[in-house]
Amino acid sequence: FDYSFRKLPFKGGYVVFAGLSELLDILEELTFSEEDLTFLRDQGFYSEFLEYLKDFRFQGNVFSFSEGDVVFPNEPILQVEGTLIEVQLVETLLLNTLNYYSLVATKASRMRAVAGDRTLIDFGLRRSHGPAGYYAVAASVIGGFDATSFVRAGNDFDIPVSGTMAHSFIQSYEDELTAFREYADIWKDQTVLLVDTYDTLQSGVPHAITVGHELQEKGHHLKGIRLDSGDLAYLAKKSRKMLDEAGLNDVKIAASNQLDEYVIKSLLEQGAPIDLFGVGTSLVTGQPDAALDGVYKLSLVADRPSIKLSETMVKTTLPHKKQVYRMLDDAGNYLGIDAICLREEHEIKTAIHPFEPHKSTEVASFVQKPMLQYAMKSGRRQGVKSALRDIGKYSRQQLTLLPDEYRRFENPHTYKIGVGEELLAERNRLVDKYSL
Amino acid sequence: FDYSFRKLPFKGGYVVFAGLSELLDILEELTFSEEDLTFLRDQGFYSEFLEYLKDFRFQGNVFSFSEGDVVFPNEPILQVEGTLIEVQLVETLLLNTLNYYSLVATKASRMRAVAGDRTLIDFGLRRSHGPAGYYAVAASVIGGFDATSFVRAGNDFDIPVSGTMAHSFIQSYEDELTAFREYADIWKDQTVLLVDTYDTLQSGVPHAITVGHELQEKGHHLKGIRLDSGDLAYLAKKSRKMLDEAGLNDVKIAASNQLDEYVIKSLLEQGAPIDLFGVGTSLVTGQPDAALDGVYKLSLVADRPSIKLSETMVKTTLPHKKQVYRMLDDAGNYLGIDAICLREEHEIKTAIHPFEPHKSTEVASFVQKPMLQYAMKSGRRQGVKSALRDIGKYSRQQLTLLPDEYRRFENPHTYKIGVGEELLAERNRLVDKYSL
Repeated sequence: FDYSFRKLPFKGGYVVFAGLSELLDILEELTFSEEDLTFLRDQGFYSEFLEYLKDFRFQGNVFSFSEGDVVFPNEPILQVEGTLIEVQLVETLLLNTLNYYSLVATKASRMRAVAGDRTLIDFGLRRSHGPAGYYAVAASVIGGFDATSFVRAGNDFDIPVSGTMAHSFIQSYEDELTAFREYADIWKDQTVLLVDTYDTLQSGVPHAITVGHELQEKGHHLKGIRLDSGDLAYLAKKSRKMLDEAGLNDVKIAASNQLDEYVIKSLLEQGAPIDLFGVGTSLVTGQPDAALDGVYKLSLVADRPSIKLSETMVKTTLPHKKQVYRMLDDAGNYLGIDAICLREEHEIKTAIHPFEPHKSTEVASFVQKPMLQYAMKSGRRQGVKSALRDIGKYSRQQLTLLPDEYRRFENPHTYKIGVGEELLAERNRLVDKYSL
Repeated sequence: FDYSFRKLPFKGGYVVFAGLSELLDILEELTFSEEDLTFLRDQGFYSEFLEYLKDFRFQGNVFSFSEGDVVFPNEPILQVEGTLIEVQLVETLLLNTLNYYSLVATKASRMRAVAGDRTLIDFGLRRSHGPAGYYAVAASVIGGFDATSFVRAGNDFDIPVSGTMAHSFIQSYEDELTAFREYADIWKDQTVLLVDTYDTLQSGVPHAITVGHELQEKGHHLKGIRLDSGDLAYLAKKSRKMLDEAGLNDVKIAASNQLDEYVIKSLLEQGAPIDLFGVGTSLVTGQPDAALDGVYKLSLVADRPSIKLSETMVKTTLPHKKQVYRMLDDAGNYLGIDAICLREEHEIKTAIHPFEPHKSTEVASFVQKPMLQYAMKSGRRQGVKSALRDIGKYSRQQLTLLPDEYRRFENPHTYKIGVGEELLAERNRLVDKYSL
């Protein structure tokens, strides 16, 4: 089976492939309990099938791009090999995991691209789709986020946990200044004050300055303030000026409230002095694209290459075990073309457009990097498991190899996906066979 | 604390409130394990706080609309009462649960509205945000869905499980007819054949007719065919004609592939003879609105009414414990106006626009139904837990009381939310107090 997607999310030029490590964990741990089997028996499943599930362990292979790699539509990102029943059984688990992780990692990478070195924190749990916010934490770090406000996930994924105070903490006191003082008494150097409960510039920032000075007198230091409503560019500039004039030049400004990559970009273009962005809904839901449309299609069964036709030619699948070669220049930069080939097809001279065969690119002179390798063999993970932050670093490094025009937000250049000659001949043979 | 939302999803006229029963389960079961406490200790939390969490059980009250009720922006849908620490602790759990359930239940109700008596099945797990697809099953039934393809969730929520064959099952055989025969041999009267692997009208439907006749000869009956690509209206009409001409008049037609309420409506307006719709991505992700923007705001603390101001006046909260009265005609139909009042404010004469006080509606002559009641008292659920399908029936019955103009898809009429005189006076007093 091949995993691939058809449509780039966010009108963007690439996807960050994520969720592989989580998928391998799932495959290693997948078993069926007595209770599961009883339920399936009640549903009318055959006893032979239940007997098979009783001792089920995934024993197949996973041949895949690396987690964090930049990937493109209609190329096989991952292939699963094994007995037909085991590779079919894991379909939904695989799609569910890779589609969501890759969607969020891609969204996060777009925010990282515009945020530069500023801090990005996930604030999304209250708006995530149920427990999805848990996995969003891992995916966001692969895409370039620094921390999360979700304490449990931070623990499990070994990611820094960060957050600020709630409006209700402030409201629970008779007045804002008392609330700020009580909070600073507890959090000291970690104090970040939320300044928009009543009025940001008239009340919140002046009270924060008072508390900042009081902390200084006690040998401590106010860490930051947080803006959570109103015109963030205007309020950040005004707040920065007020803080600086009060001698609190190193107090940071955090901003939140319906942020996404476009809002962050706009704020920074306006010169808003914001040091930290807290992003919620748009990160964990992948707005405005709620799903990566990844699919899982059979390409080879019992040594017989297989194909699915479609009313729309571009949905026709590619048969056989495959490899993807990425074309690089001598410095390792991506040239904007991948070639999909039979796995044994080693010399790739020409990458041919899969549906418009008169379009082709000579690639023999390029450095050709094979992108897929075994991540699991006979049910065993290959190599060591990387830390999420290391996968994130790898991903950002890969993105620097992708030319700007594929990364820009507006009408990004289309990365070419070609097919090798032998594979194309095999596909055309099967199209002829199954077309009537 | 009050739970409310600000913006109607899907450019629609209402939201189906869902997730209450799940929330009560969570509140009843919420505890902190030794492992949780150790982690929090490592994060630097105070030992007094950890000591508190050690024996934590939620002991508060939940005062709420009924699950399945039709609700509107800026009204308090649910209020949580208790010690400040316990009601604050549950904020994210509450928002996460109610926002997602209500989003999906609302989306499902829109599909039910256009599908009439036809069968609606959730097919969404492969595109849901991680484990969210599990909760989407429950929410979709509240909104009016009949079944799910997610076996585990169907079991846990006592909802029928349903599905059809995979393309890969067909591809795993040398030819389509053999695959259909093998499948029908196993599933007999439950056989639904997927007809678009190679060519729907040239190959899939003729082979399904052959197998339908073979099943008849063995005293069985082909249940249906499934269309999963191409022009569903055209293919459904052609397929119906072919099946009927072959004497297979009672074989059902199921359709799937990127369906939502608009596509279903369009298909049925074109007269497509489809009996069953399988809906995935748009249902479980709530596309194109990825989240209901529910918030949780403090309204009363230690007998002191509380308010949060905002740069935008419509985000200013309402203080105090409240009740919502829905205005009905003598037949029980909704008149299109709710009035939010102090909980002890029993005689509501006028419902005043919260931000444009010259706009008000005399409501003394209407039947006034109090919509909120205790769903939990001192940590104990009030009344019996309803079955999801019963909540769904209740919800659809409520929707019939809401006039058509609030339910239509295009520019639905705006349901009025007014405020009682005493509550408005209290809010204005606090706005004056905290504005500078």
